[in-house]
Amino acid sequence: MPIVGVIGGGQLARMMQPAAINLGLELRVFAESENSSAALSATSIGDYNDYEQLRAFAVDCDAITFDHEHVPTHLLSELEQDGIAVRPGPKALIHAQNKLVMRRKLAELGLPQPAWAAAKSAEDVEAFIAQHGPKIIVKTPIGGYDGKGVRVVSDAAQVADWLGKIDSFGGELLLEQKVDFSRELAQLSARRPSGEFKTFPLAQTIQENSVCSEVIAPAPQADFAAAKEIARAIAESLEVVGVMAVELFETPEGKLLVNELAMRPHNSGHFSMDGCKTSQFEQHLRAVLDLPLGDTSLNFDFAVMINLLGVDEKNDFLAHYPSAMASFPQVKFHLYQKAPRGGRKMGHLNLTGSNLDELLVAGRNCRAILYNQ
Amino acid sequence: MPIVGVIGGGQLARMMQPAAINLGLELRVFAESENSSAALSATSIGDYNDYEQLRAFAVDCDAITFDHEHVPTHLLSELEQDGIAVRPGPKALIHAQNKLVMRRKLAELGLPQPAWAAAKSAEDVEAFIAQHGPKIIVKTPIGGYDGKGVRVVSDAAQVADWLGKIDSFGGELLLEQKVDFSRELAQLSARRPSGEFKTFPLAQTIQENSVCSEVIAPAPQADFAAAKEIARAIAESLEVVGVMAVELFETPEGKLLVNELAMRPHNSGHFSMDGCKTSQFEQHLRAVLDLPLGDTSLNFDFAVMINLLGVDEKNDFLAHYPSAMASFPQVKFHLYQKAPRGGRKMGHLNLTGSNLDELLVAGRNCRAILYNQ
Repeated sequence: MPIVGVIGGGQLARMMQPAAINLGLELRVFAESENSSAALSATSIGDYNDYEQLRAFAVDCDAITFDHEHVPTHLLSELEQDGIAVRPGPKALIHAQNKLVMRRKLAELGLPQPAWAAAKSAEDVEAFIAQHGPKIIVKTPIGGYDGKGVRVVSDAAQVADWLGKIDSFGGELLLEQKVDFSRELAQLSARRPSGEFKTFPLAQTIQENSVCSEVIAPAPQADFAAAKEIARAIAESLEVVGVMAVELFETPEGKLLVNELAMRPHNSGHFSMDGCKTSQFEQHLRAVLDLPLGDTSLNFDFAVMINLLGVDEKNDFLAHYPSAMASFPQVKFHLYQKAPRGGRKMGHLNLTGSNLDELLVAGRNCRAILYNQ
Repeated sequence: MPIVGVIGGGQLARMMQPAAINLGLELRVFAESENSSAALSATSIGDYNDYEQLRAFAVDCDAITFDHEHVPTHLLSELEQDGIAVRPGPKALIHAQNKLVMRRKLAELGLPQPAWAAAKSAEDVEAFIAQHGPKIIVKTPIGGYDGKGVRVVSDAAQVADWLGKIDSFGGELLLEQKVDFSRELAQLSARRPSGEFKTFPLAQTIQENSVCSEVIAPAPQADFAAAKEIARAIAESLEVVGVMAVELFETPEGKLLVNELAMRPHNSGHFSMDGCKTSQFEQHLRAVLDLPLGDTSLNFDFAVMINLLGVDEKNDFLAHYPSAMASFPQVKFHLYQKAPRGGRKMGHLNLTGSNLDELLVAGRNCRAILYNQ
């Protein structure tokens, strides 16, 4: 029986388990702690920065994949040299780990993206502000997510701290034009080693405080063909294996610009769990094992995903199941068994049907019941 | 976090796990051996005939439920006396464990069923044959499933062995009229302790060699209202908790007769995993925890389930995934990780859509690829 090993014990590893159970595959998780979200499948606990621990976990697996993008590339290359199938491989993954590497690659591929530059000094930042300001975006090339490692600035002094320890970011910061976008979209896709590539329905993502709050699939009226071709160009040129999310800005003119890349199942694709013939988690497992990809078509006119973020350290969504389930028998509940903390991704709701407005209203009302302290 | 304990480590316990993961519940399984189909969730290994082992497993669970119907009723009553929530409770479960108890209860409720009698002797059998023969059905009241413990006979001599050890069956055999049915149906439902009751779409079941081979939901043109009311009458009068399957004969005149009962998720309800808003496994977990029941509506015009039975001790369905998945990207694969054996339930396929004939043809062709040695 094929064995997939996942580095990282977060909710993405957790949500691979139902797909593995259905397909009859074995999933093993290398988690950081005993009480991870994927604890059920955590067959090893350890430090993903320690090569020997990584290797010991990986050696019995048919393929290694990821719950997050924090494993140092050189360790993944070592695993590959030791004959382990790392999927996506480090040469692809570096583009999701390092935003400057991604920007340079997208430029080389001629794909649409915001104006950008690498900055080594305050002077570089000021020059970019002069050209694209008054406000620009500054990002640390590595380690950022959900708004962390990202600042909107109008003065180089606002990133003086980052400039002061620029070596810890690889010697450069990423500067980006602050795009005047009309909305954000996400194109989920999957590619397997033998080359097969499939996209999921293009989704619209709605952020609150830089964290994904709601997702609508398909995105109402968008340039589906352009999104698909951007994803295909990236997946094929980088030889990505597994699920990839391309986060996109849509300009007021309807043009798409690449914002970020994730090479793993992604929050913007959770709608697929209850909305599509094949979920992103099943598709990821198929892809990393080089099995034929599943049908990604949406079973409904619309699927809506509503994120459940932690309110504080005491909130307990489960305690509100009786009232939420009684009022919303059609809602699919997904809770991650994580210790609650303000703003933490604790779960999500999926709704499917033909009336988008009704789905959104029901989802938000259901969330309100779960949030009720 | 609520904990559900399942007695028995078969595929039904296994398939409760994805539902538990999604809902954020904890599932614990009391399995007979280390390598059970539900091994991932098997937190205890032991003998379900040993009260102390059962109790040690059950004491930390919010509710105890079942993968099979073999746990002796008196042990379940003891668990109840010890304050453990046994769901369904032994007073309901006995009707699924003992077919004579069921027949007597259905008669008391005035529900439609084949002509039947209890037999203690060859004379009783001959008398029933004289009235309902030339062929009748003889069943052992306890321990039968998938055609085991069931014989078609035209002479009492054909059950001489059973009559000779009749005490091991409780002192009586069950005799049933051999119904001239046009097809078999299954009404799946769920009830929770506070009384809420919901049915799933009525399904048609197709047996081969007394084992379920295919299921079609909804059953084309049937007396849906009658099936629903039979299920409701049984569930409410017996105070069933959890999912219950009522297996029905449909006579050429369209009348429904109760064949058998199962008080747990059932093979005839696997279509719900990919066909309905709420799967039978999620519904069962909700019911045994007394949570509001989910929406059971079918998301498609039709859902089809195709069973995968073991061919011999060497066959390996997984080895055929590459060709089966390539030809049938729309098929949902479910494999149970059981050691293969001829005739054993090894997995199933689910297909959903609007053209029933196309679904059946695709499902059978996909199965043929998986069966290919």
